[in-house]
Amino acid sequence: MIRSVIIIGAGNVGLHLGRAVSGLGLSSLKVFARRIKSGYDKSVLKFLTSDPVVFSEKADLVILAVNDDSISAVCSQLEDRGQIVVHTSGSTPMNVLAKFSRHGVLYPLQTFSASGKLDYRTVPFFTEANGPGVLQELKKFASLISGSVTEAGTDKRLKLHISAVFVSNFVNHMYSVAEEICREEDIDFNVLMPLIKETVSKIAIMHPKQAQTGPAVRNDRTTISKHLEALKSDLQKQELYRLLSESIHQKNQKNEKL
Amino acid sequence: MIRSVIIIGAGNVGLHLGRAVSGLGLSSLKVFARRIKSGYDKSVLKFLTSDPVVFSEKADLVILAVNDDSISAVCSQLEDRGQIVVHTSGSTPMNVLAKFSRHGVLYPLQTFSASGKLDYRTVPFFTEANGPGVLQELKKFASLISGSVTEAGTDKRLKLHISAVFVSNFVNHMYSVAEEICREEDIDFNVLMPLIKETVSKIAIMHPKQAQTGPAVRNDRTTISKHLEALKSDLQKQELYRLLSESIHQKNQKNEKL
Repeated sequence: MIRSVIIIGAGNVGLHLGRAVSGLGLSSLKVFARRIKSGYDKSVLKFLTSDPVVFSEKADLVILAVNDDSISAVCSQLEDRGQIVVHTSGSTPMNVLAKFSRHGVLYPLQTFSASGKLDYRTVPFFTEANGPGVLQELKKFASLISGSVTEAGTDKRLKLHISAVFVSNFVNHMYSVAEEICREEDIDFNVLMPLIKETVSKIAIMHPKQAQTGPAVRNDRTTISKHLEALKSDLQKQELYRLLSESIHQKNQKNEKL
Repeated sequence: MIRSVIIIGAGNVGLHLGRAVSGLGLSSLKVFARRIKSGYDKSVLKFLTSDPVVFSEKADLVILAVNDDSISAVCSQLEDRGQIVVHTSGSTPMNVLAKFSRHGVLYPLQTFSASGKLDYRTVPFFTEANGPGVLQELKKFASLISGSVTEAGTDKRLKLHISAVFVSNFVNHMYSVAEEICREEDIDFNVLMPLIKETVSKIAIMHPKQAQTGPAVRNDRTTISKHLEALKSDLQKQELYRLLSESIHQKNQKNEKL
């Protein structure tokens, strides 16, 4: 049973995991940050440490919440003492942790920001492990945090991550572009919020392809041309508009052929 | 005061406007459809008509809820009798209605689908008119439907429409692409819903640029390469991923320079 946890990394994922785990009443929790910046509240400071001694401390579970590129470097600083070592990356194979006799993955499918609170019960966790015993322990532990824990191998996790990039990072970029267009016209971006929310509500009740509206899916060349013309002072936005419209149109044609 | 309304066009916008207006208790409402398809419920059938006599009937307000390309053709079938004639298009100048002595625009900023109910009070309406009297009448009428009625000229409306395409049509396309990736891996698309909702919640409390997370904004080339490699069997998705990542990266660099 997992009673003590060390989290390496105090970025968005590390800190949010720290907050989630701190509510579980374990015997010990430490979150390692290379530097402890100012501005943390008390609830975070109580488990935050910048003392590299944690790398040699004993814990039931060590969670690597560092950038994907840093996982190997952190691994080389850790010794295998029979603790479970997991990473939290969507796009890194489990076997980068092969030097540890008990290892796995704990991938939370969510967008974490420094600010903003989250209900961790609703965050889906995906687990993988190098043996059934480790898997069971990880599942049990993740279930203490979240109501949705699923096993997913390296390939499936990669596809989950890519899907997440589309529905979160790329979607947010669309918001960002629209915000810029609104700002240039002195339009309050908030006027788009009912539309943004309705767009999400629709896919809860219908297939995204059925929910597709707008000039591109109608192949309304007149409107598309007007929009491209209006964006001509910003070639990047214009190109983005053109390609996304083209992609919607092509997808729609493909569906019609089926 | 507007007491009788004719809506020309029974597509998504026409039908939704019909539903919204039917709740206002006007003396008369008719919605013209070229063909009345089966499957309409009673509440819609009571105001739906396919009798072209409506084109010569008297009404205080005629709303053209047809495709942008059809506005001119419909105009040529209508005579100017002092009624207010408006279109509902985001990207069509008001002056296409210049033959009518009292004309304007009533643009609802929302995504309308055949299925799905809407709270019309939350739909922002943008109005424009060829005179202060008409504008006042239109604003009064729109305020009966919605809690958000704003004046917006042709240029501003065009930019609103483009912004709407980004935050709704393009966003929905991202959902659609992700749904396809999930389906191929036997992943339930609903597992992405908490992430989708959180992505929207974040921009209600922070600027979209601050809310940007993911490999592209971190310029995490390793992860981006893995994702592009995993998408190699679908060149369209791969290209979309590449361009959106590039666009996020460029935008971020631009901001850093500022």
